[in-house]
Amino acid sequence: MFEIDRIIQTALQEDIGSGDITTLSTVPKGTPAQAELVAKEDFYLSGIEVAQRVFTLLDANVAFDALREDGGFVKRGEVIAWIKGDAHTLLQGERVALNLLQRMSGIATHTAAFVAAVAESDAIIVDTRKTMPGLRVLDKYSVRMGGGQNHRTSLYDGVLIKENHITAAGGITAAVAGAKKRAPHTLKIEVETENMDDVREALDAGADIIMLDNMDLDTMREAVELIDGRAIAEASGGVNLETVSDIAKTGVNLISVGALTHSSPAVDISMLFQ
Amino acid sequence: MFEIDRIIQTALQEDIGSGDITTLSTVPKGTPAQAELVAKEDFYLSGIEVAQRVFTLLDANVAFDALREDGGFVKRGEVIAWIKGDAHTLLQGERVALNLLQRMSGIATHTAAFVAAVAESDAIIVDTRKTMPGLRVLDKYSVRMGGGQNHRTSLYDGVLIKENHITAAGGITAAVAGAKKRAPHTLKIEVETENMDDVREALDAGADIIMLDNMDLDTMREAVELIDGRAIAEASGGVNLETVSDIAKTGVNLISVGALTHSSPAVDISMLFQ
Amino acid sequence: MFEIDRIIQTALQEDIGSGDITTLSTVPKGTPAQAELVAKEDFYLSGIEVAQRVFTLLDANVAFDALREDGGFVKRGEVIAWIKGDAHTLLQGERVALNLLQRMSGIATHTAAFVAAVAESDAIIVDTRKTMPGLRVLDKYSVRMGGGQNHRTSLYDGVLIKENHITAAGGITAAVAGAKKRAPHTLKIEVETENMDDVREALDAGADIIMLDNMDLDTMREAVELIDGRAIAEASGGVNLETVSDIAKTGVNLISVGALTHSSPAVDISMLFQ
Amino acid sequence: MFEIDRIIQTALQEDIGSGDITTLSTVPKGTPAQAELVAKEDFYLSGIEVAQRVFTLLDANVAFDALREDGGFVKRGEVIAWIKGDAHTLLQGERVALNLLQRMSGIATHTAAFVAAVAESDAIIVDTRKTMPGLRVLDKYSVRMGGGQNHRTSLYDGVLIKENHITAAGGITAAVAGAKKRAPHTLKIEVETENMDDVREALDAGADIIMLDNMDLDTMREAVELIDGRAIAEASGGVNLETVSDIAKTGVNLISVGALTHSSPAVDISMLFQ
Amino acid sequence: MFEIDRIIQTALQEDIGSGDITTLSTVPKGTPAQAELVAKEDFYLSGIEVAQRVFTLLDANVAFDALREDGGFVKRGEVIAWIKGDAHTLLQGERVALNLLQRMSGIATHTAAFVAAVAESDAIIVDTRKTMPGLRVLDKYSVRMGGGQNHRTSLYDGVLIKENHITAAGGITAAVAGAKKRAPHTLKIEVETENMDDVREALDAGADIIMLDNMDLDTMREAVELIDGRAIAEASGGVNLETVSDIAKTGVNLISVGALTHSSPAVDISMLFQ
Amino acid sequence: MFEIDRIIQTALQEDIGSGDITTLSTVPKGTPAQAELVAKEDFYLSGIEVAQRVFTLLDANVAFDALREDGGFVKRGEVIAWIKGDAHTLLQGERVALNLLQRMSGIATHTAAFVAAVAESDAIIVDTRKTMPGLRVLDKYSVRMGGGQNHRTSLYDGVLIKENHITAAGGITAAVAGAKKRAPHTLKIEVETENMDDVREALDAGADIIMLDNMDLDTMREAVELIDGRAIAEASGGVNLETVSDIAKTGVNLISVGALTHSSPAVDISMLFQ
Repeated sequence: MFEIDRIIQTALQEDIGSGDITTLSTVPKGTPAQAELVAKEDFYLSGIEVAQRVFTLLDANVAFDALREDGGFVKRGEVIAWIKGDAHTLLQGERVALNLLQRMSGIATHTAAFVAAVAESDAIIVDTRKTMPGLRVLDKYSVRMGGGQNHRTSLYDGVLIKENHITAAGGITAAVAGAKKRAPHTLKIEVETENMDDVREALDAGADIIMLDNMDLDTMREAVELIDGRAIAEASGGVNLETVSDIAKTGVNLISVGALTHSSPAVDISMLFQ
Repeated sequence: MFEIDRIIQTALQEDIGSGDITTLSTVPKGTPAQAELVAKEDFYLSGIEVAQRVFTLLDANVAFDALREDGGFVKRGEVIAWIKGDAHTLLQGERVALNLLQRMSGIATHTAAFVAAVAESDAIIVDTRKTMPGLRVLDKYSVRMGGGQNHRTSLYDGVLIKENHITAAGGITAAVAGAKKRAPHTLKIEVETENMDDVREALDAGADIIMLDNMDLDTMREAVELIDGRAIAEASGGVNLETVSDIAKTGVNLISVGALTHSSPAVDISMLFQ
Repeated sequence: MFEIDRIIQTALQEDIGSGDITTLSTVPKGTPAQAELVAKEDFYLSGIEVAQRVFTLLDANVAFDALREDGGFVKRGEVIAWIKGDAHTLLQGERVALNLLQRMSGIATHTAAFVAAVAESDAIIVDTRKTMPGLRVLDKYSVRMGGGQNHRTSLYDGVLIKENHITAAGGITAAVAGAKKRAPHTLKIEVETENMDDVREALDAGADIIMLDNMDLDTMREAVELIDGRAIAEASGGVNLETVSDIAKTGVNLISVGALTHSSPAVDISMLFQ
Repeated sequence: MFEIDRIIQTALQEDIGSGDITTLSTVPKGTPAQAELVAKEDFYLSGIEVAQRVFTLLDANVAFDALREDGGFVKRGEVIAWIKGDAHTLLQGERVALNLLQRMSGIATHTAAFVAAVAESDAIIVDTRKTMPGLRVLDKYSVRMGGGQNHRTSLYDGVLIKENHITAAGGITAAVAGAKKRAPHTLKIEVETENMDDVREALDAGADIIMLDNMDLDTMREAVELIDGRAIAEASGGVNLETVSDIAKTGVNLISVGALTHSSPAVDISMLFQ
Repeated sequence: MFEIDRIIQTALQEDIGSGDITTLSTVPKGTPAQAELVAKEDFYLSGIEVAQRVFTLLDANVAFDALREDGGFVKRGEVIAWIKGDAHTLLQGERVALNLLQRMSGIATHTAAFVAAVAESDAIIVDTRKTMPGLRVLDKYSVRMGGGQNHRTSLYDGVLIKENHITAAGGITAAVAGAKKRAPHTLKIEVETENMDDVREALDAGADIIMLDNMDLDTMREAVELIDGRAIAEASGGVNLETVSDIAKTGVNLISVGALTHSSPAVDISMLFQ
Repeated sequence: MFEIDRIIQTALQEDIGSGDITTLSTVPKGTPAQAELVAKEDFYLSGIEVAQRVFTLLDANVAFDALREDGGFVKRGEVIAWIKGDAHTLLQGERVALNLLQRMSGIATHTAAFVAAVAESDAIIVDTRKTMPGLRVLDKYSVRMGGGQNHRTSLYDGVLIKENHITAAGGITAAVAGAKKRAPHTLKIEVETENMDDVREALDAGADIIMLDNMDLDTMREAVELIDGRAIAEASGGVNLETVSDIAKTGVNLISVGALTHSSPAVDISMLFQ
């Protein structure tokens, strides 16, 4: 909650700064206003409480009536929320509320497309740390609103031994041994692998999760067979809406998709005074 | 400069938090490392100094050797920078540096495509306030690196009378009069118009800039003719790479494109230990 | 709003710190109190809502009944506001509230004197960036409460090419050309001039506003004549209550006065328990 | 030190914000510059290290060569400091550095006038808490640079029982007893008195310092006689350059002057590129 | 108040960070809960309002019903407070509230033991600056709740000339003279002494308080006799529950005990859902 | 690193505030000093780099020569570090540096005693979230320096289903099922159990770690036998230096000890000018 308030306050400060000159000079103080948030395209909603918080942080007297909940599918033309309050507040919060809502719903909508594409498998779509700097909690929340699940949040809550760690540690075996000895016992250990040799070494070292990075479909299938439930298999790299369905069919448990959070287009939503 | 440091520190705090468990448990303290940043696709570069600052904020002893400058075109496979320092620092800064660099270069590259599309006209591509919350200074900088120009930064440094202001103020004439009386004399006054009547009213009221919002090409041409240099004409709404060239041909002076900053896909860059 | 809260919280933190020892050791917790704010001299009021916010930030249960509004003229002996609440809160907020109110009203009162002195001309009194570090939004607000208008707020919302810029840029013409090419199209361009040659060069370069800096009255008149409405003429430098009326008569549009915010004496207001 | 950096960073953030548009658009990046700070009137200097810190916080490579030290008397026309560095840095720091330096030296100069006026007595000029919100450490430092001494800094480091405390506590005797019992034994206890009865009661209660508030000269003399060295006698209220000398002659030990920090005019200093 | 909120928010941020995964994944949103805070041992209570603030800062709708007040003695098994609200809020605030309450009550309980041990003398138990970094206001408050009194808060509100100052200043006499000349007249001057020569020198120099540091009982008695009420005598060093009673009998006025705040064990309190 | 700087800056701000009056008034500016940190008792060292950072954050020119490393055993009388710099800096940093060093080394020393007590078993001593609010990263680091290991850091990086969660979720089985479905796949799931029925249910539900809370030794042994390596067994509650050895002999894998961080006494270290 503090984190979300920090994000919103930073954004409001960034946009309003020393004052909203246009509103201050053209709209009389105390003018009442009523506005609606309208979907200009179809999408999955994420961020409606965040949008509400933008206005109530500016002015506790604003009434924000959300007509839809996060995670729901919204049709073009639908009214998502009614907002009532001082016209100055509504005009000052508009852009920040929309910027957040449009990004968050964009991520949920993009995620939902990936989830739909693997619906016939048991594979789960998960996110990565390729999020917008400063907005990670919102990005990861939006992935869940689109039906995906979260990978570790950050460097502090998961052990993921990647190529560069392996290089610096002197190999997969040494790296896993270090993690087993020094990382908290509450965390599983994941290893990034590039080929079947890596997979074998990671399995032998006792990895809990094995990331199959940028492998072709045949290698992935072979790896899943070798792993055979002794570890969680995660596909990663080169995942897009064309390839994700075939990747899911290889039998991997998880598919991580960076594009969910680094390249989702914003959806279009407008705020109109009534 | 303070603003950019705030962005980077927020991002590092978000990603590292209580500690990078993987690195701490697998890589011996004091291990030296050398890495390169490599382009995995073609793009226009933006953010190389920001990426450098990520590492030097973590550790002033990191050597970061940028091989390219912001604004330049980078080919797939090119090495953009060499980084040398403690392996812990490089691993802890990697994701934040890449997240920023990939977004910033994504915006520059997207902008450059718009700029190229209007190259045969005098129209200038400008951005909007539809930026990523908290990252506006970087977003706007990246637009410039792609060859675009900046519209006002925020609510505090420009007068842009939009539809909701006009509703609340009781019309274009009243709104412009208010701005002329109360806004600092150092700012031009811009009015959003929906049709030719609006354009006429804005002109008569003495607007310095007239935004032609979501108009079809014929109306836009008619508006440009009517304005006839007495104000700056800015096209806005529904602008994409298919439409922008025709819009430019209507003779407008500026074309503002929200997608530059709300929907640019990230470019792909990797950091590899040598 | 966030900015004003930041100012108040910084000031309260500065004054209260680890605790108000006198009040804690002499006044029983929970003692109710009622106080009045009384004008000890004549002045124009500015900051009454800021004073109220000081107390309500400390304790939402304080009742603050403002009897006058900002911008109004207050006579010596008048009660400006009634305050009712816990004696600890009133005693802890007293000094910060008065320090802010006395400064802000001091600026408004000083500004009103300048405005009165030019009442027979069309000249407008504007402020400068010579404000108290950290308090600019309050300083500039108080100028408006005294009947003045605001020049640009800061470096980020206006183009004002001063002597040092001209030196560094290699002349007025080069500097204006740079600004026209690179500054946002939403900002007017102002140039500081020292003599008639400068004025001519600024006009030819296309400056929107021309500052006549420290010129004698004759030169100022000559400049106004030459400009002849093609740019806004702003007088600056050496402006005080003795000179401002004659300056106004030269026909300049604006007169900027640093003393409004760097040298206004505080007015005298006291808070007395009843 | 942290406090001063906070003040400077707040001020720089306030003035530069999203960027110094004029400098960025008119002066090429990397242009070297050299400037001098010149006194435009006579004054006592305060804040030269603060001014230096403004520039070095912006850019550690700026060379700032102070020719004078705080506390010294500067003659009109004297060069106070040389500054050498990137023109952008100098232009971005100029206003903040001057605003601070001009205010601080203004306080020192004003204080020095009071100190001179009481030079033939043993009375010491001290400040009050009527300082500029957020700038107290600089204000109090400047009083010392003008030859004055500091009263308590804030509510947390002194016991000063004022009229409102006496009202709320039920009298001087009760208030002093509370302070003796509950305030740290490291602090002296001061009581504000309005008349001779108050002075007597404060003395009997065991006050360490007795403030003679707004008393006429005869009463003050009588009070000093009564106190007779058993407590420190402090004159307060209605002190100005006309009255201070006579007040000093009453034999009081301290004279506190609010105007030192709430109404000192700024001195005039300019920064000129060479 | 701001300081306490800062402490709580830092602690909540530290403990909750990007989210309470256990609660979010196991307890349905909106589950109501009721809990009690129960004493698991005997102790003096300190921090009950701080514990309440932890929950209300998270969610203003939590009802916190304190059954006991700070400063009171609580028996093992007693219910200290009832808490009612959303289960998520109660689970997220639990650890921070208990960590603060257990430390604060630990200090009060430890202090009360020292106070009891000197009950037959007039000596007062005071604290030191050996507090937990960042928690000083709570530590010092808890000493008062245990019946002790506070020494100076920090370096800014007291003059305590210690061994290292004496070394650097060139002796006690020089150091006291400096303090008399330059420190605010509102502060008493304390000097740390190691032997009778020091005590004599401090007395002669005019110290208001003399700290007898690590002296044996005989020397302490001799010092108290010499001082004879001309200064406050404070014992310090090597004070524990075995020695404090004898120290008190030497006739010193104050006994300062670092262990109150650097080594008090936490008391045991649990929060249980009903 | 940012976190540690935040801790130190908060502590320095808390202790120095508006200024170190004693030092400023008694020690001439620029006086050079040299001091040593000396152990006044035996202990395990933790925090030597933190102590160094205290001084270098105040003044980058201080030379701090650490003679010992964290984790080492220090004998009474040993010099731990030499410090050389401006006397003002050394005096202003002394208390904060010592407060941190004494607490951190206290935790390491206390932990080492627990580790020694279980040396003949395979049990590992781990910490809890019962840390000092705001200092968790230092507390947990110090546990490692004493030979212990870390449990989860906070609520964000581990799933630990405790009694209150079980109550709110409707039982162990339901709670574990929720965690398996919604928590990131990178985290193990731990369940707190009170008796053998709980242990069985947790095992059947698929818990990765089972906490045996406040069980007697016989029950603990029975539980370890039942678990039989299918989950990690963690003893918790009522652990002290008398009981820990017997607990270790039950065969549990981990023993968590709250007292390490909530009740470790500070060790004694002094800083003396030479």
